[in-house]
Amino acid sequence: MKSHTRHLTFELPERMGFLNITPLVEDELRASGIREGLLLCNAMHITASVFINDDEAGLHHDYKLWLEKLAPFDASPATYFHNRTGEDNADAHMKRQIMGREVVVAVTMGKLDFGPWEQIFYGEFDGRRPKRVLVKVIGE
Amino acid sequence: MKSHTRHLTFELPERMGFLNITPLVEDELRASGIREGLLLCNAMHITASVFINDDEAGLHHDYKLWLEKLAPFDASPATYFHNRTGEDNADAHMKRQIMGREVVVAVTMGKLDFGPWEQIFYGEFDGRRPKRVLVKVIGE
Amino acid sequence: MKSHTRHLTFELPERMGFLNITPLVEDELRASGIREGLLLCNAMHITASVFINDDEAGLHHDYKLWLEKLAPFDASPATYFHNRTGEDNADAHMKRQIMGREVVVAVTMGKLDFGPWEQIFYGEFDGRRPKRVLVKVIGE
Repeated sequence: MKSHTRHLTFELPERMGFLNITPLVEDELRASGIREGLLLCNAMHITASVFINDDEAGLHHDYKLWLEKLAPFDASPATYFHNRTGEDNADAHMKRQIMGREVVVAVTMGKLDFGPWEQIFYGEFDGRRPKRVLVKVIGE
Repeated sequence: MKSHTRHLTFELPERMGFLNITPLVEDELRASGIREGLLLCNAMHITASVFINDDEAGLHHDYKLWLEKLAPFDASPATYFHNRTGEDNADAHMKRQIMGREVVVAVTMGKLDFGPWEQIFYGEFDGRRPKRVLVKVIGE
Repeated sequence: MKSHTRHLTFELPERMGFLNITPLVEDELRASGIREGLLLCNAMHITASVFINDDEAGLHHDYKLWLEKLAPFDASPATYFHNRTGEDNADAHMKRQIMGREVVVAVTMGKLDFGPWEQIFYGEFDGRRPKRVLVKVIGE
């Protein structure tokens, strides 16, 4: 069994944003030399997500409004007890749970075994600082 | 390390529906000959889910109402910017994020290592056309 | 390829609660002797979650209120059809979908390859009875 590990760093300029990281993940898969196996890609921070969906700007706009409705930003420690710690990002911990921490992708014949529209995104809910994403590939 | 890969195709007759695919996944596990390892099962389309929950019709009814409340269908491009592309399925991209893209299941002594009620479902949120699910098993 | 499997049992005293199980998962990783690979940790019951987030009491308080708002407890079979089976836990099946069934964690140099705040939690939504969590590690 072979394995390959890499931490990537991203800094998004806004509080909430989505970045297509598929080409970077494919680079790591190539570097691994693995032809058959599984690839894990996860946010290493708990106010961020890695998820698979469509690379379409309108959808990303919709996601932002929708997540804001389901888990609104509110810096007040009266609304979110987490913000009594001095943080203002309780909402980001919720948004991340809806979008998920990680994806596991099949590696088949040396490629991400994807459907026609699958793309991997880094989802940021408390940005404007560097944060890390892990890529791990295991297989043969 | 052994691996086994299969794409299954499903076409559900309604926009939203849930199908118990556990027996088909078990067939792939048997075909793999793998006794110890991990099994990945994921939707290959971004308006569908694979998830694990209860095979109970009342619960599936409840899930449909609940998902419709959290992410209502609305074909209007004024409500969802994604629908300005000519699609009407922005809501399906949201429902899929709540229910998830994939499951990873332990394979122990040649079987899915499941609790008493765990069953694998294909969740469709924009049906009435053929869509694919991937099964990948790695191990020994 | 090596593998290691363990079922852990938890009984939480309240209907909804969160328990940091990271030290127990690390024990299993050590017992496995695996240095490079993947670790799966999942709830074996369909009204419970395993998820990764922050070990902060205020956030857990916020999660409880938030989940109760998104998927309110209601024992009535008129509200949730699932409760016509004699159960009263339809809401717990929904809360679990938001928080997720499982996490997959990279194992690097014999450790959980975690960001600074990542901790693994058992999330219970229908407690007061013993329920199981699976830990599986594969690798070398």
